[in-house]
Amino acid sequence: MDTPAIGVDIGGSKLLAVLVDHAGQVVAQSESVIPGPEASAAAIENLICSEIRGLLPQQRPIPVGVAAAGLVDGANGLVRFSPHLPWREEPLRERLVGRLNDFDVDQVVVDNDVNAALWAEARFGAARGMSDVVMVTVGTGIGGAILVGGRLYQGRNGMAGEFGHLTLEPGGRPCECGLAGCWEQYASGRALGQELRVLGRDLDGPEITAAAQAGDPDAVVAFEIVGRALGRGLSNLVTSLDPGLIVVGGGACAAGDLLLEPARDELGRQLLGIGHRVLPEVVTAELGPSAGAIGAADMARKQA
Amino acid sequence: MDTPAIGVDIGGSKLLAVLVDHAGQVVAQSESVIPGPEASAAAIENLICSEIRGLLPQQRPIPVGVAAAGLVDGANGLVRFSPHLPWREEPLRERLVGRLNDFDVDQVVVDNDVNAALWAEARFGAARGMSDVVMVTVGTGIGGAILVGGRLYQGRNGMAGEFGHLTLEPGGRPCECGLAGCWEQYASGRALGQELRVLGRDLDGPEITAAAQAGDPDAVVAFEIVGRALGRGLSNLVTSLDPGLIVVGGGACAAGDLLLEPARDELGRQLLGIGHRVLPEVVTAELGPSAGAIGAADMARKQA
Repeated sequence: MDTPAIGVDIGGSKLLAVLVDHAGQVVAQSESVIPGPEASAAAIENLICSEIRGLLPQQRPIPVGVAAAGLVDGANGLVRFSPHLPWREEPLRERLVGRLNDFDVDQVVVDNDVNAALWAEARFGAARGMSDVVMVTVGTGIGGAILVGGRLYQGRNGMAGEFGHLTLEPGGRPCECGLAGCWEQYASGRALGQELRVLGRDLDGPEITAAAQAGDPDAVVAFEIVGRALGRGLSNLVTSLDPGLIVVGGGACAAGDLLLEPARDELGRQLLGIGHRVLPEVVTAELGPSAGAIGAADMARKQA
Repeated sequence: MDTPAIGVDIGGSKLLAVLVDHAGQVVAQSESVIPGPEASAAAIENLICSEIRGLLPQQRPIPVGVAAAGLVDGANGLVRFSPHLPWREEPLRERLVGRLNDFDVDQVVVDNDVNAALWAEARFGAARGMSDVVMVTVGTGIGGAILVGGRLYQGRNGMAGEFGHLTLEPGGRPCECGLAGCWEQYASGRALGQELRVLGRDLDGPEITAAAQAGDPDAVVAFEIVGRALGRGLSNLVTSLDPGLIVVGGGACAAGDLLLEPARDELGRQLLGIGHRVLPEVVTAELGPSAGAIGAADMARKQA
């Protein structure tokens, strides 16, 4: 089908909406700020609908995909839990279908943002043509998604791929999720910040990346430590899933090999059957911050 | 198809061959001892072929499935590495196809023994009707397999599901694989034996199970400790894979709830999104020690 589709990616602080063509090219886009964690569910729905309205093309009916951070049951269009938004067991697809009725929308899909990003990378980006792929997004925390035989693997509750909460260090650093020692406490933007804070420096993720790229030794060492922790967790994913490719997305992938070289090195040290297996390449995502919205649009087009 | 099929399961010390009907019922079977770790590849091939010849039914051509412990690339019929046998990058399917030519065999399938056991449980046993299932076999070590959408998930090298070598304790107990802290060092028959050895008692797995069932407090505590380590590892599998069911097979599952109750309890303590997800049931396998052979036969029938 050559029809366009609309994709919306709802992050913790902003909402990105795109109109994409059948080849995943962004034809138009708009962004808006989510009014703080106190925003009501109705306010966010209003925002989603007004962004969609602003992008509606002549050619309709049009499929709409919505990607959201959190525990999302894509099969049922349900947001079970969203850390930054007021959604708890929210039947988001059903609510949007009702509200988008007048817009001549023919399909509404709701899924997890990393699932949507992996779908986009598999269709148009770093994982084109690959069928068994693991995606790990390294931002403030760690998100994940799994492609099996060319299809997204969701799991029973739609919660497969919540890799950030795999235990890396039993009894280790406390995590916001209530558990301890979660991978994302050691291999994320937050972990980078912590490595520098113990040296008395308070920088955010992009600042640490810029510093490391400029040769700042503290920042380079922080990436080395965090990259190795990333690689240790990736080893566990390869032991379980033996993927053909690992795509690393999220803000921290802007650092490229500063993060990925130590991760690749560590990955090779922690695996069974080295010498009898082909290791997956570990590559950075190609589609950048629009991947979630592009993927959501394409998932909706595919279902339409 | 109503044709029968032959399945062969090659373990570390013995070989089990079965003739099964289309419903997975064993019509005939035979067992033989593998002549020690010094057995040549040719000697094991001879043994496989003579067992198959002994079970050949009138109705032919007949499909043959072979399950083997180790790193097996099922898609290519290749045994990449077998810990107890002389196979290294062995093109087992190709070799058997050549040797079984005279027997009027129409399909030869070679796969990992846990994959075959999970296939059998999904078709005829504890996982009937389920599409997303994780199997963990707890014997001397830990083996694993993954069913996604009703199909075995093999991974790029056929090595998906090698759960026994997930890191449970970084820098922990040395493992035969050369790594440290592997899950199977904490949650296996070997781990049970170790818990009792530190108390000055030297028992094997079946003896420990019998002792615990008779109320021996040392043995009961050993199962509690090992069951909790099992549950901690299962938590990581659920975080990654969100399966609909976990089937526990292998020798240790003879202990039933002595092993599984502490595992279930621990599983519920170590997961993200409790209250927003349905936890998978953790059940024992139903088909016992013939599961691998039955599953291999059925996989071959399916491909024929």
